[in-house]
Amino acid sequence: MRAQGLQARAPHRAMSWYGRVRDAIDGLARSSPARFAILVFTALILLFTLLFSLPISSATRTVTNLHDALFTAVSVICVTGLSTVDMATHWSGFGNSLVFIGVNIGGIGVLTLASILGMAISRRLGLRARLMAASDTNPSRIHVGPVNEGQAVRLGEVGNLLLTVIVSALAIEAIVAAMLFPRMLIDGVALGDALWHSVYYSAMAFTNTGFNPNAQGLTPFENDYWFLGALMIGVFLGSLGFPVIYAFARGWRNPRRWSVHVKLTLLTTLLLMVAGMVLYIILEFDNPETFGDLDASDTVFQSLFLSVMTRSGGFSTIDVSELHGSSLLVSDMLMFIGGGSASTGGGIKVTTLAVLFLAAFAEARGKVSMEAFGRRIPRDILRLAVSVVLWGATTVAVASILILQITHAPLDHVLFDVISAFATCGLSTGLTQDLPPSGVIIMAATMFMGRVGTVTLAAALAASTSRQLFKRPEERPIVG
Amino acid sequence: MRAQGLQARAPHRAMSWYGRVRDAIDGLARSSPARFAILVFTALILLFTLLFSLPISSATRTVTNLHDALFTAVSVICVTGLSTVDMATHWSGFGNSLVFIGVNIGGIGVLTLASILGMAISRRLGLRARLMAASDTNPSRIHVGPVNEGQAVRLGEVGNLLLTVIVSALAIEAIVAAMLFPRMLIDGVALGDALWHSVYYSAMAFTNTGFNPNAQGLTPFENDYWFLGALMIGVFLGSLGFPVIYAFARGWRNPRRWSVHVKLTLLTTLLLMVAGMVLYIILEFDNPETFGDLDASDTVFQSLFLSVMTRSGGFSTIDVSELHGSSLLVSDMLMFIGGGSASTGGGIKVTTLAVLFLAAFAEARGKVSMEAFGRRIPRDILRLAVSVVLWGATTVAVASILILQITHAPLDHVLFDVISAFATCGLSTGLTQDLPPSGVIIMAATMFMGRVGTVTLAAALAASTSRQLFKRPEERPIVG
Ligand SMILES: [K+]
Ligand SMILES: [K+]
Repeated sequence: MRAQGLQARAPHRAMSWYGRVRDAIDGLARSSPARFAILVFTALILLFTLLFSLPISSATRTVTNLHDALFTAVSVICVTGLSTVDMATHWSGFGNSLVFIGVNIGGIGVLTLASILGMAISRRLGLRARLMAASDTNPSRIHVGPVNEGQAVRLGEVGNLLLTVIVSALAIEAIVAAMLFPRMLIDGVALGDALWHSVYYSAMAFTNTGFNPNAQGLTPFENDYWFLGALMIGVFLGSLGFPVIYAFARGWRNPRRWSVHVKLTLLTTLLLMVAGMVLYIILEFDNPETFGDLDASDTVFQSLFLSVMTRSGGFSTIDVSELHGSSLLVSDMLMFIGGGSASTGGGIKVTTLAVLFLAAFAEARGKVSMEAFGRRIPRDILRLAVSVVLWGATTVAVASILILQITHAPLDHVLFDVISAFATCGLSTGLTQDLPPSGVIIMAATMFMGRVGTVTLAAALAASTSRQLFKRPEERPIVG
Repeated sequence: MRAQGLQARAPHRAMSWYGRVRDAIDGLARSSPARFAILVFTALILLFTLLFSLPISSATRTVTNLHDALFTAVSVICVTGLSTVDMATHWSGFGNSLVFIGVNIGGIGVLTLASILGMAISRRLGLRARLMAASDTNPSRIHVGPVNEGQAVRLGEVGNLLLTVIVSALAIEAIVAAMLFPRMLIDGVALGDALWHSVYYSAMAFTNTGFNPNAQGLTPFENDYWFLGALMIGVFLGSLGFPVIYAFARGWRNPRRWSVHVKLTLLTTLLLMVAGMVLYIILEFDNPETFGDLDASDTVFQSLFLSVMTRSGGFSTIDVSELHGSSLLVSDMLMFIGGGSASTGGGIKVTTLAVLFLAAFAEARGKVSMEAFGRRIPRDILRLAVSVVLWGATTVAVASILILQITHAPLDHVLFDVISAFATCGLSTGLTQDLPPSGVIIMAATMFMGRVGTVTLAAALAASTSRQLFKRPEERPIVG
């Protein structure tokens, strides 16, 4: 709406087609970064749906079903890692390249967009200052009314941010690939395959996607601590989020200067990682289908691996459907929480959960304000956190009810795959691969809602504002 | 702690045993109404566990297992309606009388205690004024620091409130029984049975318990709209909560003067009732095991009945385990939300849900404060609502993981029965009856946490306070 207005007001009547489009994008990015993000994701998904459905993309050189092409496009661009076709055999070399390029565009895109959205509404001017701010002090969304032009994000600034994100992402991916490559050679993988697979795996790890380049998946490496450890590092760094990575890069020797956001993300992520590991050990150590035959150290390592992957890595060394129902429920919760803000991880984000608990702690201790790491947390952020959780719970509930009614599959599998889709985790009980076309579309929509929804929701809400002309009398309902 | 302090400070050294106990109770009720409520419930449960385990209580005149006696006591006092023994055949006449007396004590007890807790922390003096306040204006918990003696609830006032609650409860139960009694005579039930069963059913309805006095359960009445309608009225009124009933009694002709609490409870309850009904119709109309053979009007009526009963009535005309997985999930959500505050219904309470959504709406519209019915809702109540939801979600999660690990039963049944226990709803897939003793204890604990926990938590939190000596610098993490 506003973008068109800006465009119409532009003085150059004889403007070129390219100039108009650029101005329209510029205007939209300025006036509504959230809508801009949705537009970018939708355009990418449509483009990749088209590309995946081309005969050249499939191994058999035939047209791929529209719902499978759409699902794969959403799964790739939203870095989910779920699939309705066999990813290792269905696609041609061209198709596989699309997957590789798609997850990198999706991963870097979400880091960039989430960072923009997180900072677009900041009071500070200048994106560089805001970027620094995000990594060691007051980073984000403040209710300041409609974004005015001085505060809005410009395409030039977006370019700078994008460059920083791309350099960081490629650097981390290169390091992870360098860890994987010699190992694959030692394991006897041919040079060409080792090169391609190590790059592919490292991209799948850092972008928290979780596709495998080979038909056997992780089976050849299931006891390789070095290989799995490298994947874990990639997934862990990707799921922390760009503000945290930026803070590491700028001042890893000086943790005291890290912002509350960085500390809160790290603490919550580590707590969830350890809690998940301990629960998996307790619940699965005697399950013969999963960790029952492993010795103590292997059980600990595999439990840690599984716990990290629920953050939203999506790699798996075991058949998820063989997990006990209790472990599946634990995984549901871990996946729903997901990764860090402005990360390639999904879910409601670890800081959202942390804010809810900080509110409950403050309430229990009778404190007026939430506190963390010696800082007060503004109370209006609780409303944002509640909104994000309601959005997530509603999406998961609606999708689960629809999939249950379509398939009559057991709840543990349906809930697991739906939450995996919402949180763009990619672990699966196998249900997703057997869905009818209607179910495939619902799962694709769930992935989109999970990825684009949670990233844009908070920004859209924080940007919205309306004047209150008078103050109403206050009245208190009873809760609980 | 404080109660003992008060007692120790009492001037009468030669005080009688009775006097000391009375003073101790008085002191505890004053200093910590939440702890007082927990104490009352625990004492009642222990007493009824003892009584149920006596040989005189069972039909076979044998000692009932401790875990079954405990479970029944918790189920009765917490007006849940779940059972691990066959309620219609296991107990003697004496045992059945215990059940009847127990649910009335439990139901009236929870109405009274929740009303006390809801008002104990109010700024206003005098319980009568507070009671009126609760029914048509600013009713409840305000952060005012530790409850001082002038504001605390005294036993005399509790007596008055208790009397009002008892009179209201008995009046409603009498009306429902009067609707049921002639109908049972017409249906050919013998006079004595009809009298006892109509009184029993009406108590089970108003207290939202849901036990049946006869082995066939509701089967003889499954097509009797009058009978089921009377039960629905009883359950509906019971689940609204005492402040709402009191507001009805005082000014049903003048809805404009109702408090926000009353309006919010009614609106949310009606919305949930209709939403549940519509979803059950859509999901179950072609399920041959439930509503598949019914005509349109019967399907609507039975769906409405099921929807009302998830509020936490617990009566059922169908075999719950035959519902589709989708309907079970819908029921899980409806049961988790539960009834109104200070009601015999369980769950997190409808106003808690309403406050969460009001916060999200306010956030979406960019309003500084939550609003409902032309009133501002104080923002600190959101923290209370978040705390109650976290308490509920944590209880359900922990209980579900434990029951899943003990039984390896399917998630849809485990989640349903655990939420039914937490929300003291009493509907069951049949899982609870087949649990081993360890599972029975976990379910009993879940009922206790759900009933006593949610009722006391909000009051305990609102009463807690601590001085903040200095204001910390503010800093904002990113959420979502
Ligand atoms: K993933
Ligand atoms: K009940």
